[in-house]
Amino acid sequence: MRSLIKDVFLKYFKGDILKNLDDSAILENISEKCNISFTTDSYIVNPLVFLGGDIGKLSVCGTVNDISVTGASPLFMSCSIIVEEGLETSVLQKVTSSISKTAAQAGVEIVTGDFKVVEKGKADSLFINTSAIGISDKNIRLGKKRINIGDRVIINGYIGDHELAVLLARKEFNIQADIASDCAALNGLIGDILQKTGSIKFMRDPTRGGVATTLNEIVENSSFGIRLYEKEIPVSQQTKALCEMLGFDPLYLANEGKVIVICEKKSAEDILSIMKKHRYGKHSKIIGEVVKDPPGKVILNTVGGSYRVVEMLSGSQLPRIC
Amino acid sequence: MRSLIKDVFLKYFKGDILKNLDDSAILENISEKCNISFTTDSYIVNPLVFLGGDIGKLSVCGTVNDISVTGASPLFMSCSIIVEEGLETSVLQKVTSSISKTAAQAGVEIVTGDFKVVEKGKADSLFINTSAIGISDKNIRLGKKRINIGDRVIINGYIGDHELAVLLARKEFNIQADIASDCAALNGLIGDILQKTGSIKFMRDPTRGGVATTLNEIVENSSFGIRLYEKEIPVSQQTKALCEMLGFDPLYLANEGKVIVICEKKSAEDILSIMKKHRYGKHSKIIGEVVKDPPGKVILNTVGGSYRVVEMLSGSQLPRIC
Repeated sequence: MRSLIKDVFLKYFKGDILKNLDDSAILENISEKCNISFTTDSYIVNPLVFLGGDIGKLSVCGTVNDISVTGASPLFMSCSIIVEEGLETSVLQKVTSSISKTAAQAGVEIVTGDFKVVEKGKADSLFINTSAIGISDKNIRLGKKRINIGDRVIINGYIGDHELAVLLARKEFNIQADIASDCAALNGLIGDILQKTGSIKFMRDPTRGGVATTLNEIVENSSFGIRLYEKEIPVSQQTKALCEMLGFDPLYLANEGKVIVICEKKSAEDILSIMKKHRYGKHSKIIGEVVKDPPGKVILNTVGGSYRVVEMLSGSQLPRIC
Repeated sequence: MRSLIKDVFLKYFKGDILKNLDDSAILENISEKCNISFTTDSYIVNPLVFLGGDIGKLSVCGTVNDISVTGASPLFMSCSIIVEEGLETSVLQKVTSSISKTAAQAGVEIVTGDFKVVEKGKADSLFINTSAIGISDKNIRLGKKRINIGDRVIINGYIGDHELAVLLARKEFNIQADIASDCAALNGLIGDILQKTGSIKFMRDPTRGGVATTLNEIVENSSFGIRLYEKEIPVSQQTKALCEMLGFDPLYLANEGKVIVICEKKSAEDILSIMKKHRYGKHSKIIGEVVKDPPGKVILNTVGGSYRVVEMLSGSQLPRIC
C-alpha cells in the first residue's frame, strides 16, 4: 500500500522542488534576504495520548523539526483538525492546549487553521495537519551533496523511545515500562549548532523507520557509505531491555525528538559539546563516520567486534506511530 | 459541536494574526518586497467525486481561492493525504491526477507533501489537506475597515451550484438534475481585477454557508449594512427549480468558484466588465450595495417589491460538502 501510494504520488506530482522528497521544500525566490522552508505533515497517531506526549505536541514538534533540519527557523504554523463527531470535549481541549503550549515553547506562532467534523465512525477520534513556514540565511547550504568521506555522524541522544512509548500506550502487550516519547521541538538545539554552519553538511530527523532508514536514505545512490559504532549509539537501559524482549532493533524505531547531524570531522567535538549543553542533547554522541567503502551501504561495527550491513527496513512497520 | 470546537480553538490559539479568523494569514515581516499569505484547509467532501469536480480539484481550488481573496498570487502548495486502507488505486489515481492538473492550470506548484494510511474503518476513503503560500504587493490593502457606504457588491456568477452538485451525487433524493459544481481556481480572475487595486476594498469566497453567511460576517459589528437586490442575484434556472423543490435558499448554499468583491461605486462597472471577460466571470453581476441603515444587517430587496432581513444561517447545515 505504502509503495503503491508513493508511486501514484510521484507519477502525478513532478515539480522540481517536490521531487527531492525532502521533508521540507526550500523556496529561494520569494524573499531577497532569506530562503523560505515550507513543510506539511498529517498526524494520525493512535492512541492520542502516550507517555511523554500527545497528538497535539507531536504535530507541532514533528513539523518544527522538519523545518529546522533544513537550517531554517520555524516561525509560522497552520493547524487543521479533523474531528470525529462525538469526541469528548475534554480530549479536544487537552490536545488543543498541548498544541498551543508546544508552539509557544518553540517560539512558533499558529496563524491560520481549519476545523472539520465528520460523522461518527468516519474518522478515528482526531487527525491533525500542521504546515509551517521557516526562514533561513541564504548562506546556509545543507544537502547530501556536501557530505564528504571522513565527516562525522552525530545524534542528540537515546533512540527508539517514541515508537516504544506509543506501543506501550496501546496496552497490547501487557508490559509495564516507563518509556516516554522523546517528542521535542529541536529548533533551539539546531539553532545553537548552526553557529557552526560551515561545518554542518546535512541534518535529518530520524522519525518513521528510525536511524537505520534515515542513514540508508542518505547513502542511497551515493559514492560513500556510513560506518556506525554500536557501542556509541545511545540507547537507554529500559529501551534496550524492551527491544530484547520484543525482538525489536532500536535502530529501526521511530524518534520524534532526534536529529542526525553530519559535519566535518574537525568540528565534530565542538558541535557535540554545544549539543550536550542543550536540554535535548544531554546524551549526544558521535555514532559514526562517512566512509569510502562500501559505497551506498550503512555498516554497523558491533559491540562484539564483528560488523553487519544495516539494511533499509523491509516488511511492515507498526502503523500509526505519528 | 461546531461552535464548541470554535470555542475551544479560540480559547487556546490567541495569536494576533489568527484572531482575525480570516481564511488566510498575512505575514508582513518575512520579505521586504512582498507580503506573504498563508492558508490551510482540510477537505472531507462526501462523495469523493461529483459533477464538476472531485475532492482533488476541490482541495486545490479552495486553497487557491483562500489565498487569492487576500489579494495575493498563490505560488506554492503542500498536499497531505490521509488514505483509508483498502482504497482502490484507481480512485487514488483519479484524485491525485486531478490535484496535479488543477494545480498546473492554476499555475501553482505542489512543493511538499505527506501520505498517511489508517486502517480500514478509521477514515472515510480519503481526506486531503492543502496549505499554500502566496505573495502580494505591499501596497495592496484589503479589509473590512476599508469598506464605505455606497460601495458596490459584485459576484462572479451563479450561486449555490457546488452544494447542490454534492447533494445530488449522494443520490439520497432520487432526483435527476445536471447541476455541476462551480469548483474553480479564481486566481486568474482576481488577478485581472486587481489592476483596479485601489478601488477594491474587500474580497471573500462564499463557501460554507453561502453568500448570506459571508455577507453577514462582513456586516457583523460594523457601522454599515448591505442591501441586496434579489433580481440581480445570479441563480441558474436548474438551481432555482431544485431549491424550490427541496425548500433551500440559494443564498445559503456553498460555492467553490465564487468571489464576492466589494469595491468603490465609481469603478464597479469597470470591474464588472473585466470579470465578465473571464471564463469564470461570464455571469457576473452587481448584486447589492453598502448602506448606512440598518447597520450590521443584510437586507434583501425581493423580486416582489418587499424586503426581508437575510440572517446568518442558524441550525444545522449539510455536512461534508467541502
